[in-house]
Amino acid sequence: MTDTPQSLKVALLGAGNVGSQVARILTEDAAMLEARIGARLELVGVFVRNPDAPRDYQLPRELYTADAAQLVDRADIVIELLGGIEPAKTLIERAIANGSAVVTGNKALLAQSGSELFRAAADAGTQLSFEASVGGAIPILRPLRDSLSGDRVTRVMGIANGTTNYILDQMDTTGAAFADALAEAQRLGYAEADPTADVEGHDAAAKAAILANLAFHAPFSLDQVHCEGITSITAADNEAAAEAGHVIKLLAIAERIRTEDGTDGAVLRVHPTLLPREHPLAAVHGAYNAVFVEAENAGHLMFYGPGAGGAPTASAVMGDTVSIARRLVRGGAGRTHTPKAVLPALEVGEATTSYMIVLRVADQPGVLAAIATVVAEHGVSIEAMRQVPLAEDDAVYDAHEGTGVPASHEPAESLLRIITHRARERALASTVTAIKELDVVTDVVSVLRVEGN
Amino acid sequence: MTDTPQSLKVALLGAGNVGSQVARILTEDAAMLEARIGARLELVGVFVRNPDAPRDYQLPRELYTADAAQLVDRADIVIELLGGIEPAKTLIERAIANGSAVVTGNKALLAQSGSELFRAAADAGTQLSFEASVGGAIPILRPLRDSLSGDRVTRVMGIANGTTNYILDQMDTTGAAFADALAEAQRLGYAEADPTADVEGHDAAAKAAILANLAFHAPFSLDQVHCEGITSITAADNEAAAEAGHVIKLLAIAERIRTEDGTDGAVLRVHPTLLPREHPLAAVHGAYNAVFVEAENAGHLMFYGPGAGGAPTASAVMGDTVSIARRLVRGGAGRTHTPKAVLPALEVGEATTSYMIVLRVADQPGVLAAIATVVAEHGVSIEAMRQVPLAEDDAVYDAHEGTGVPASHEPAESLLRIITHRARERALASTVTAIKELDVVTDVVSVLRVEGN
Repeated sequence: MTDTPQSLKVALLGAGNVGSQVARILTEDAAMLEARIGARLELVGVFVRNPDAPRDYQLPRELYTADAAQLVDRADIVIELLGGIEPAKTLIERAIANGSAVVTGNKALLAQSGSELFRAAADAGTQLSFEASVGGAIPILRPLRDSLSGDRVTRVMGIANGTTNYILDQMDTTGAAFADALAEAQRLGYAEADPTADVEGHDAAAKAAILANLAFHAPFSLDQVHCEGITSITAADNEAAAEAGHVIKLLAIAERIRTEDGTDGAVLRVHPTLLPREHPLAAVHGAYNAVFVEAENAGHLMFYGPGAGGAPTASAVMGDTVSIARRLVRGGAGRTHTPKAVLPALEVGEATTSYMIVLRVADQPGVLAAIATVVAEHGVSIEAMRQVPLAEDDAVYDAHEGTGVPASHEPAESLLRIITHRARERALASTVTAIKELDVVTDVVSVLRVEGN
Repeated sequence: MTDTPQSLKVALLGAGNVGSQVARILTEDAAMLEARIGARLELVGVFVRNPDAPRDYQLPRELYTADAAQLVDRADIVIELLGGIEPAKTLIERAIANGSAVVTGNKALLAQSGSELFRAAADAGTQLSFEASVGGAIPILRPLRDSLSGDRVTRVMGIANGTTNYILDQMDTTGAAFADALAEAQRLGYAEADPTADVEGHDAAAKAAILANLAFHAPFSLDQVHCEGITSITAADNEAAAEAGHVIKLLAIAERIRTEDGTDGAVLRVHPTLLPREHPLAAVHGAYNAVFVEAENAGHLMFYGPGAGGAPTASAVMGDTVSIARRLVRGGAGRTHTPKAVLPALEVGEATTSYMIVLRVADQPGVLAAIATVVAEHGVSIEAMRQVPLAEDDAVYDAHEGTGVPASHEPAESLLRIITHRARERALASTVTAIKELDVVTDVVSVLRVEGN
């Protein structure tokens, strides 16, 4: 490596919800990206219809241009976030013809013309990455294309559209009718004013075609997807499903099939689907997405995360961009994991967590106050505190203690369960030590850390 | 591409549970692997201590050898599945020095000497892949290293050890004591006779170090992981956790921390942890593993799947092997997704699924028999059938029907809910058509597909 690291020219097409987040990350996280790539990503311009319009994330005015072709011709990597077929397709083809690498999140274009574009990229010896086109931030492209490349995927089932998942989830949990759940989704910004592409399943169908491409290592397109939306789902359907122990989800399904006459093929379909409540996909709520994969050797896998949104989708775009940039810089074989950054490992005392502390305490006035005071003195605050008369639980806790002595033969005691707010591990540990020394505390029954709160 | 595709020589070190599955896949799926790589993977030998011992998957005798060094020297790709530090480390170093690519699932070795081995591979310009070392078949390596490479991961929490998850899950669901749950896990083969490495958290700690390496793009090792096992967890702890709406899991946690004096670093820790019941990791049951990732832009992601087992782990090994082989064959830049295989898209009628059919039927003798006969005539079998007097549900179903006429003013009718077994979509669709024509059927209220059963 030389002292002046190489720089790679990046062109951004589009500055909408996702594009402006990509611009932000390219700007604010430039040092992190350079460390990971071994070269600087230089944003050479942003194609927008009106360069003078204000943006969510404002770059210097001179970076905006209405001349897309001229911008594409200057770039090593072109990030296409325009959506729709044109001018996206023409610009991607131009970038590929130039030998530039392309990152896109354009599911409509890929579902229509993916095979053609991939062939063009292969012929030109360049790369076309598209993680952001399915499942927002959820890594799907590399898991299916690379991680499972030595296995045979038999079926992929995806909750691939957050809008419909939000609507169905509302109908399931509140008993709402479709129209009311849709109105609520529109109010919250989860559904567009014209919700057709979502509720009729067209968006999910485009994703089904892309998932099938990845899972089966073979080309599929949108017109091969059987598609039914959720507009005819009623509260009564939800009720019948619930009575049968199921929940209704709009699934994008791609599966390997052998027909009765022995032909191997794939069926691609999108439709409302009943899933048993205990299925991992049934627990995917709100606007989240998930992809459930069945493979011959791997068994059942699931990938879960936010299915849309500017920052999550930008994360996927940037993952593709960094991966491409690394290959451009390092070349082929040397793609081994070589962490360059240094991040010191810290003592566990530096972690922030919270504790559940169960104490055996004397049944006398002032106990709670004494304990709460000690906790506060250590800079820890209490989220919840519950005192349980020992008689209620003595069998359990005596078994734990191993004494076997009935509570009634001992001085009156209670169990006190404290859950703290998050604090440094160090402070929590010294709080427990101090609590242990209090006269009113007979025993520290257990101390367990709490996460995810 | 020439008519005689290139072949790559593969050496397999170890023929245990995972190794024998890798041998099977290399043999039985050779054509699929060749199509995906564009070159043949030739298994040139398997290093075992005793070449004459019988194997789960038996290869020709001449492929087994006790001379590991000589085997390593003949290979383009070395797959190391011996486990433990030696002779695995010496053999991997030898392969790297030869310029061969290495695939390993050896978490103990990576957690101890990972940085050293990655540096050696980078210096030699070769590749070292290790997907199988964490989370069995769950794709973790590429999602963290590549897909999230443009994002800043703030925390990773993994259920990284299936044995302890099985034990804790048993304790939670049955109220069993630790010793009883461990005995049950041993009886089922989920825990070893000496369970120390699992129940004391050592296995999870090795995985925490590897996850931290990937997530933070910086080197960490086992001795930097704070480690507590689950041997002191009691039924009383589970009860207290449950009362507070939590479940206890053994988590491997790696998180980015800023100390009070402003130092950025990472804390790595393994310990029993309370999680709210509604947290996605709380729903990971039995011997399954999952990794929950929090990133600045992507938000919350989860990867879920079987954490161990011969075939799942072999799937991860083969994913690494195919990915490496593709790079060796195609070289650097041209790694675009170019599906070569052809898998025809089939009509949706070829899909197998099951249906929930809700009918409004006349309340008269023989109705169920008439319907069941029609269903059977179409080659479809019934999983469940439930008749509900319409009065019970009329508000719901009348609303659905939009008639608003009270059921009591109409001839006596019932709702009949049928769930079928899986059958071809074509057969199911024609079953519904035939049912609709029966005199006793007033209306087909809804038809919905069922998956995941």
